[in-house]
Amino acid sequence: MTRGQFITFEGTEGVGKSTQLETARSTLEAAGVDVVVTREPGGTPMAEAIRELLLAPRDESVHSLTELLLMFAARAQHLHQRILPALERGSWVLCDRFTDATYAYQGGGRGVPAGHIAVLEQLVQGDLRPDHVILLDAPVDVGMARARDRSEPDRFEQEKAAFFQRIRDCYRQRAKDQPLRYHVVDAARPLDEVSGQVASLVRSFLG
Amino acid sequence: MTRGQFITFEGTEGVGKSTQLETARSTLEAAGVDVVVTREPGGTPMAEAIRELLLAPRDESVHSLTELLLMFAARAQHLHQRILPALERGSWVLCDRFTDATYAYQGGGRGVPAGHIAVLEQLVQGDLRPDHVILLDAPVDVGMARARDRSEPDRFEQEKAAFFQRIRDCYRQRAKDQPLRYHVVDAARPLDEVSGQVASLVRSFLG
Repeated sequence: MTRGQFITFEGTEGVGKSTQLETARSTLEAAGVDVVVTREPGGTPMAEAIRELLLAPRDESVHSLTELLLMFAARAQHLHQRILPALERGSWVLCDRFTDATYAYQGGGRGVPAGHIAVLEQLVQGDLRPDHVILLDAPVDVGMARARDRSEPDRFEQEKAAFFQRIRDCYRQRAKDQPLRYHVVDAARPLDEVSGQVASLVRSFLG
Repeated sequence: MTRGQFITFEGTEGVGKSTQLETARSTLEAAGVDVVVTREPGGTPMAEAIRELLLAPRDESVHSLTELLLMFAARAQHLHQRILPALERGSWVLCDRFTDATYAYQGGGRGVPAGHIAVLEQLVQGDLRPDHVILLDAPVDVGMARARDRSEPDRFEQEKAAFFQRIRDCYRQRAKDQPLRYHVVDAARPLDEVSGQVASLVRSFLG
């Protein structure tokens, strides 16, 4: 049994991650691959409960370390209860955000030192990293306008444009530093062009 | 303004921590000290919500790292939002459990390597440690019988006697290794003797 591939979708709010996860899913399923689609934070009932804690708007100011530790608590549960078992039985896992989002949001966005994130990444994941990261990249105002049309803002979406700009910058820097693992897709183009590029990317992973 | 002292109460289920916290509170208040009584996991609305996540019996098996990270997420919030501000304004903080409980329950009880706990302790607390740890020590069967009489068991209280024996052993070993910080109280004795010893201990901390 060959281990499945672990592919994550990253980007700021409103860049079309959910849509492109579905593009990737249908492309892989058409090629006969067994696919698990999941998301972070979340992916198991307990991790989804942690997600609710994280996203709920609240009066109490949430310390940046609290947020960081909750993210990794949800990740430990998701990884050990769901992602690793799926990969080991040969399924491919497509995940809406993973640890690269922690570097971008808590690191770039909130200013948590990258060294703190690296300590937790090592503790929870050991050497496991996504095989491929698909970064859907678009100017912040494009994504924010799309996200606003969609639903009431959660605790993250209530942040200001400068916060999302720092996140985008951090993602783009990570893509530059890790060109083999990261695949940058210009998500400001028309939907069919973006979907076409994502489909051809995931077909290339089939090797 | 002199910084307050940080005193924690530790021990397995049913050893009388809540009762002895009240003994300590009234002893210190009688001496004119401003006292904050709190507990872990918990102590702020968000940390209490994390506590509920941790204690709720559930079908999903909870990974030991998930539990560990949730404990420290609640601790980061509690420490930065409540404990440190209280100590800095000169109040004494009496806390029902703290990081020594993590070493005992997640380390001794669940077998999480102490090194993992130490990494998180350093990340969340820096050099902060309780000034005094009062360990209420009693044979496991004595405490379990008392806890059973009190309420429906939570996810921890559902564990078997061997689990609590490992926790007690770990607490006693830590007390041996850190004799200046730990104060061991034999909690199997009659209540008035235990309370008398706790009152005289905290009076000695007034220096």
